[in-house]
Amino acid sequence: MAGVVVKPRARIYHGHEWVYASEIKKVFGDPSPGDVVSLKDFKDRPLGSGIYNPHSQIVVRRFSRQRQALDADFFRRRLERALDYRQTLALDPAALRLVWSESDGLPGVIVDRYGDHLVVQTLTLAMDQRKDALVEALRDVCEPKSIVERNDSPIRTAEGMELVKGVLWGDQPSPFTLEIDGLRHQIDVLEGQKTGLYLDQLANHQAVAAMAKGKRVLDVFSHHGGFALAAKKAGAARVEAIEISESAVAAACANADRNGLEVEFTVANAFDALRQRESEKATYDLIVLDPPSFTRNKGGLAGALRGYKEIHLRAMKLLEKGGVLATFTCSHHVDGKVFQEMIAGAAVDAKKTLRRIATYSQRADHPVIATLPETEYLRGAAYETMGGW
Amino acid sequence: MAGVVVKPRARIYHGHEWVYASEIKKVFGDPSPGDVVSLKDFKDRPLGSGIYNPHSQIVVRRFSRQRQALDADFFRRRLERALDYRQTLALDPAALRLVWSESDGLPGVIVDRYGDHLVVQTLTLAMDQRKDALVEALRDVCEPKSIVERNDSPIRTAEGMELVKGVLWGDQPSPFTLEIDGLRHQIDVLEGQKTGLYLDQLANHQAVAAMAKGKRVLDVFSHHGGFALAAKKAGAARVEAIEISESAVAAACANADRNGLEVEFTVANAFDALRQRESEKATYDLIVLDPPSFTRNKGGLAGALRGYKEIHLRAMKLLEKGGVLATFTCSHHVDGKVFQEMIAGAAVDAKKTLRRIATYSQRADHPVIATLPETEYLRGAAYETMGGW
Repeated sequence: MAGVVVKPRARIYHGHEWVYASEIKKVFGDPSPGDVVSLKDFKDRPLGSGIYNPHSQIVVRRFSRQRQALDADFFRRRLERALDYRQTLALDPAALRLVWSESDGLPGVIVDRYGDHLVVQTLTLAMDQRKDALVEALRDVCEPKSIVERNDSPIRTAEGMELVKGVLWGDQPSPFTLEIDGLRHQIDVLEGQKTGLYLDQLANHQAVAAMAKGKRVLDVFSHHGGFALAAKKAGAARVEAIEISESAVAAACANADRNGLEVEFTVANAFDALRQRESEKATYDLIVLDPPSFTRNKGGLAGALRGYKEIHLRAMKLLEKGGVLATFTCSHHVDGKVFQEMIAGAAVDAKKTLRRIATYSQRADHPVIATLPETEYLRGAAYETMGGW
Repeated sequence: MAGVVVKPRARIYHGHEWVYASEIKKVFGDPSPGDVVSLKDFKDRPLGSGIYNPHSQIVVRRFSRQRQALDADFFRRRLERALDYRQTLALDPAALRLVWSESDGLPGVIVDRYGDHLVVQTLTLAMDQRKDALVEALRDVCEPKSIVERNDSPIRTAEGMELVKGVLWGDQPSPFTLEIDGLRHQIDVLEGQKTGLYLDQLANHQAVAAMAKGKRVLDVFSHHGGFALAAKKAGAARVEAIEISESAVAAACANADRNGLEVEFTVANAFDALRQRESEKATYDLIVLDPPSFTRNKGGLAGALRGYKEIHLRAMKLLEKGGVLATFTCSHHVDGKVFQEMIAGAAVDAKKTLRRIATYSQRADHPVIATLPETEYLRGAAYETMGGW
């Protein structure tokens, strides 16, 4: 069997599951891209089984501490474990991430369930090559009406794969309506710009909305209106939402109509829109900041933080005394401390005292693995803002 | 008016509220310990008002960005703000921290409400000297039946104050029963080892208990049994609790009897008790670790982390596959990243994969101030533990 010998001091000796090119001492047995390789330490002791792709930055991703083939049986066991785990979470099973890559022991595999339909992504070459075995296991374990692949994420190009989408099994599902947390969503698993549901944020939509009753709310980077609609549904007096993507605003407006909720959407750049509201002396009781990741890598962090700080500063200036700022970051590189310090810096510039009243993270169907810090990417907090004491 | 000039680069220029001795350029006007002083920057510009104690490590604590006297009117305004804030939180008003020091703009003042009675601590010299004005304001704003001081915390000795307790206003309250989250507690605000209620953890008791149904639970460092009793009440199959303090166990047993709940308490050192259970091959489905702070200062951090890691490692070994570890740290010096890395290290040693399913923090009546990181001290997380993939 082909394999890879890992250098001393590599991250895998500290519980991590990835091997970078610089951590490889030797490749033996001439594995092909996508093959399963056996991992060995520098003293030839076994470290488990990994998937191999020399064209990826992460050359080997370990998926088992044992010698293990990637067959339908294996996928079945992993899926059963993933489902067992999610049954303990008391989440709505109608909209759920069933498999989340490394966090479920299936590097690169993502499976979401919407009603009776499964949406699959295979973002690593090895998993992509074994899509048939995965589909077989999904049919057995989940008994869906259909299985669709949405392999149109640009992440795939980093592993040297094409962008594709289509039905993997079952009939092509028509768009349908799904009710989640009292809101009706139009789900088109195959076409359109994803479902716009953001499963990782669903619990946070509800948590923030619980503070919205009677409030004037501004939802910045609103995308399909997750926070805005939940806030209005929860009794907000008035909800404005800012989003730069016209197609996202169109989808959000359709969502609002579908639920009979009134939200004032504006297609605009968030920085400009916040500046304009400041010049108009607009004020709000609750502002949500849920920006896209401003950086995908560590090198872009300083620039990203300047951007984050600016939107926080502007939002703080728009808040009434006692108003609440609910803010999120979805970049792994903005860790908890960096995020908090950026907010503190903006508070000093805005001459406000901020009391933190809640913290948020990605929903538990996207679990963080303790030894894989990269699995943590979504952080949030809510602050009551006051003028300085 | 007496005052203090602050050196350049002091923390107060970055939104902090404390001035250390090393940050003081000059003291003028000969202030006495406990006096209000005006703060000035090195260019003689005003920075607000602070309380002065040259015998404390923190010589000045700012309490206002304005020129401000510490009188009953001031206390009334701060108390009204503290109450307004807490009314937005939807917490049970019967057991609530009404005032939490710097987080409510009253450095050193802590006020807890138990039913109709207030329990006050004045942990800074200036606030202690102005207890009468504080009591007057508390009577006006909160209309309690009694106000008691529990100034028997050893923290007071650091500010050069005596340890005292007694009634400040109203009749001496008799012990009474308070029901919180469905559990009856005996409250003796004046005598005994505090109330044992740990207001900062009340919400976390419920969150962890929600995972306890049908489970075999071990509560380590159980003190008065907050987690243990909540877990049993929520339907745990069996609950064991370990606590080294005999008086705490006596109080916990009385709590269990009062609520008709069966919990097996053991008076023992947690390290020994965990080791013994390991040798007996005991297993659990849910283990709670809620240790006291292992360090009060940064210097003790390395030693503290060795202790934390050991109890985590031992707890992980006692968990069934799929079992949950809920763990807390109440030391400010163990920040989020340090805490997570310690847990990851223990997971590697225990050969377990840990999935984080929840994060916890201090209850929102102990709010964190964004620019005062010292106000954050309680962190927690729950992990599902598995054998390695």
